Amino acid sequence: MIKVGVMLSGCGVEDGSEIYESVLTLLALEKAGATAIATAPDIEQAQIVNHYTGQETRMETRHVLSEAARIVRGKIVAASEISAHDLDALILVGGYGAAKNLCTYAADGVAATVNPDVERLIIELNALGKPIGAMCIAPVVVALALRNRKNNALVPTLTVGEAGDVATHLQRLGVKYISTGLDQICIDEHNKIVSTAAFMMAETPAQAETGITKLVEHVVGMVRETNATYQG
Amino acid sequence: MIKVGVMLSGCGVEDGSEIYESVLTLLALEKAGATAIATAPDIEQAQIVNHYTGQETRMETRHVLSEAARIVRGKIVAASEISAHDLDALILVGGYGAAKNLCTYAADGVAATVNPDVERLIIELNALGKPIGAMCIAPVVVALALRNRKNNALVPTLTVGEAGDVATHLQRLGVKYISTGLDQICIDEHNKIVSTAAFMMAETPAQAETGITKLVEHVVGMVRETNATYQG
Repeated sequence: MIKVGVMLSGCGVEDGSEIYESVLTLLALEKAGATAIATAPDIEQAQIVNHYTGQETRMETRHVLSEAARIVRGKIVAASEISAHDLDALILVGGYGAAKNLCTYAADGVAATVNPDVERLIIELNALGKPIGAMCIAPVVVALALRNRKNNALVPTLTVGEAGDVATHLQRLGVKYISTGLDQICIDEHNKIVSTAAFMMAETPAQAETGITKLVEHVVGMVRETNATYQG
Repeated sequence: MIKVGVMLSGCGVEDGSEIYESVLTLLALEKAGATAIATAPDIEQAQIVNHYTGQETRMETRHVLSEAARIVRGKIVAASEISAHDLDALILVGGYGAAKNLCTYAADGVAATVNPDVERLIIELNALGKPIGAMCIAPVVVALALRNRKNNALVPTLTVGEAGDVATHLQRLGVKYISTGLDQICIDEHNKIVSTAAFMMAETPAQAETGITKLVEHVVGMVRETNATYQG
């Protein structure tokens, strides 16, 4: 059975994982015959936003792992407990949590740092030639994690949809940027990285579904191709 | 455009709305050509459960409306601000929040009371002959809200999947109980109430999708039929 890690960053678009993207990714993985291994770093959230008022709340603390656990009915593993050897691929879901909790991009822009466990997983999977998928703002996390690769011969190609400020930042991180439509995916065959706009462009779940499903199917297809080659 | 209320009860299966059920309902409504009006009561949550450890947390308070807002990216209206005249139908999503926040069933069993705004919407929609859908544990909320109807000629027919304790409770509330499989829906033509097991039986999102999509399509179909009759 193909095992695909799904990296979450909390629960809710403003301070965690975008929930539609998370569920559509998990649904597409199940339909593609893969086992999803949900994971998140066990750290305090950078911020808590009241999703009804849109205002930040400073009166409490929440933790990324236990909030992300809400999406997957408790079936989640701390990122620190997962090795790249446990997974055939990794998909990073979007939402501001990817830019606030998985890395510090929301606060620091291109000078951002990445959570050590998230960075380790991305670097190790990439080094092992295993596919990585990223949607919405999450391609930034992949670009940040891979910016200091020693063997940096292959520049990652990524999309977050239409070119904009984030596209400019990705280019400053050494990424080849591809502008895409909502239903499209950007495929980096060399680095085995697949990305799509999702809620960078979508406004409703059905609008996001096509791109996310294509991404999931392509990532799972890359794993099957690799496995076929090994068993060849 | 057909407007369908989606009653949420928080964000996360243990103390709020089951997230897969919520997203699959919203996705199916969009694909069926209906506009979803997400709503939830603006009250404090009965309980907060850490979804990673499974333990109750007593150190903080959370509110049903602002937590439910996480699922729908902030696009939600307080239940107190909605009239049955604003909606063509209402669907109640499951998760323990339905039994803890929408009513007191989790604590009080068949002696439970229903949140006044939730009760008002169910009674008014039913009186207006508008369809109601309910999945997972939420049929209990419908049964509780309708148990004291003055014009109680038509006993509601409901399901929560296979017969069990909840089925016995529903019967004690005056409901005709139908045992169903995971992919099936229970249709009460007279009362225009449609129910399905969802995560009372499902363990994964794809397993729940068929029943939820059937429920949504049947509810929307009932609205179209009524509109055609009126215009006919």
